[in-house]
Amino acid sequence: MTIEEWAERIQAGDPRNIARAITAIESGDPASIPLLKLVFRSGRRAAVVGITGAPGAGKSTLVERLAASYRATGLRTSILAVDPTSSFTGGAILGDRVRMQRLATDTGVYIRSMATRGHWGGLASATYDAVTVLEAAGSDVVLIETVGVGQGEIEVARLAGAAVLLLVPGMGDEVQTFKAGVMEIADIFVINKSDRGGANRLEHDITSMLSVSPRQDGWQPPVVKTVSTTGEGIDALRHALDGFQSFCARTPLGKSREREKWRERLLDMARRDLFARVAGPLLGDGWVDEVVAEVMARRTDPYSAVEEMVKKGLESRG
Amino acid sequence: MTIEEWAERIQAGDPRNIARAITAIESGDPASIPLLKLVFRSGRRAAVVGITGAPGAGKSTLVERLAASYRATGLRTSILAVDPTSSFTGGAILGDRVRMQRLATDTGVYIRSMATRGHWGGLASATYDAVTVLEAAGSDVVLIETVGVGQGEIEVARLAGAAVLLLVPGMGDEVQTFKAGVMEIADIFVINKSDRGGANRLEHDITSMLSVSPRQDGWQPPVVKTVSTTGEGIDALRHALDGFQSFCARTPLGKSREREKWRERLLDMARRDLFARVAGPLLGDGWVDEVVAEVMARRTDPYSAVEEMVKKGLESRG
Repeated sequence: MTIEEWAERIQAGDPRNIARAITAIESGDPASIPLLKLVFRSGRRAAVVGITGAPGAGKSTLVERLAASYRATGLRTSILAVDPTSSFTGGAILGDRVRMQRLATDTGVYIRSMATRGHWGGLASATYDAVTVLEAAGSDVVLIETVGVGQGEIEVARLAGAAVLLLVPGMGDEVQTFKAGVMEIADIFVINKSDRGGANRLEHDITSMLSVSPRQDGWQPPVVKTVSTTGEGIDALRHALDGFQSFCARTPLGKSREREKWRERLLDMARRDLFARVAGPLLGDGWVDEVVAEVMARRTDPYSAVEEMVKKGLESRG
Repeated sequence: MTIEEWAERIQAGDPRNIARAITAIESGDPASIPLLKLVFRSGRRAAVVGITGAPGAGKSTLVERLAASYRATGLRTSILAVDPTSSFTGGAILGDRVRMQRLATDTGVYIRSMATRGHWGGLASATYDAVTVLEAAGSDVVLIETVGVGQGEIEVARLAGAAVLLLVPGMGDEVQTFKAGVMEIADIFVINKSDRGGANRLEHDITSMLSVSPRQDGWQPPVVKTVSTTGEGIDALRHALDGFQSFCARTPLGKSREREKWRERLLDMARRDLFARVAGPLLGDGWVDEVVAEVMARRTDPYSAVEEMVKKGLESRG
């Protein structure tokens, strides 16, 4: 099968070839680049929603409910579960198979876990590329679920599209400590497990925080209460997401977010590409291990070692 | 003042010049590189402990207590609070001033928040460089406190030295969802706020998880219960940390962890350095904004655009 045929089958929505493409992206297979060039040209776009929250906040269940809601209105929906854990265990714990259960019989849903053996940075980049494949394959909506609430996870959610932050009651008076860095980036707040005590208190804390530091772009992040196990509040969340997307479309926010996304991505891609071209050949020689040994023995410092290595790499090309 | 004098003052432990150095690192000031080369050569080393945990887990208080414990045994101790939030608010929320209160009168403690306007990646790199400065300045112990429990935060803690993961009771039966990716990396588990209900249950869950998947390197992560507000359990945590450090010293783990740290760091530094040299000049021309516009209009695809840019950058050097 040629790359062109592969791209065609993806655009026809063939699950096996979509899966093959995402695996190629995940493993850094060079064949993924010409493929991505082709599928990017399909010009198809999806609404992308990034969902992040602490472990145990109920993300998976919420994401499944949300997918079902999109499906109910006829939208083709994909779920990407970004699962850095797999890099340590060698297999996706979230388990596509387990998660398929509820939505398994619906061919309009595509579910996939993403992981890489390498860095978080690589995983984020692979996730965006996977979105490109899913868009070409005709997804109307892509839900990206990230495990964890670190800066990296939130960045992925935000650059993806709408950033949804899941919180649960019971953190009590500590919502302040959740800090602006995480809180300011969320476009929509979800208080899941809102049947637990403390939901109103948490809602109040978030609302206060938002009124103290309103966003510069004019968007007022709504706070939605859900119980993902029963499906309560999912309609309200859908409504909030639709509201955000329409706000993005009619104000400069949509374009500026997209501009920011592409800027970050292009710079990141260029950094990787450059490194692969220039440093790649040196790495093959076991150069890095040698320098690591030198640095550990304090025979050189890492700053000088890196300069020398980059110089060497650039010279070997001239 | 020459770079040499600056380095000398840092090695003499002068707080103002230490602060200046960390600010230079944070802001990417090129002067920080020759300075880091000099201070790295001091050859001084500190025991580095990375503390991570969900917001509200009580990290700051625990870190202060732990610092006080190291001080009580005469060890010079530094605290680096890695605070990505600052990148959005333009100032460190954790507030060196507020946190100084308890330890303020002690000249053997140095406290500093770290932030960068840029990426998480940049912040991690700056944190390691700051550790180099604090080591040269004579710190015996450096405590790195990271906000959040994402993959990036855990990586920082782990590559720093001992990785301590703070948990709090109340997550109930959801500790499983904390997943291997975060759990497997921790060298020491701390159940803080252990006076709350559910502490024993949480301890049991962690212990079960650890027995199901024991670590390959032979280290058995201890589970320590603390109440950071009262100081309960801090001695046990100290003991656990000392135990880990001695394990690292007498088994291959110490060296292999250090090797891994330098490998990651050198590759990351090389990636940045290379990009600055080759792509830097192009970026000045507004090239990126132009390409972003092209990609958004779908007149080109990001993969081809990046290839072209890297080729151009390399050619312009030849």
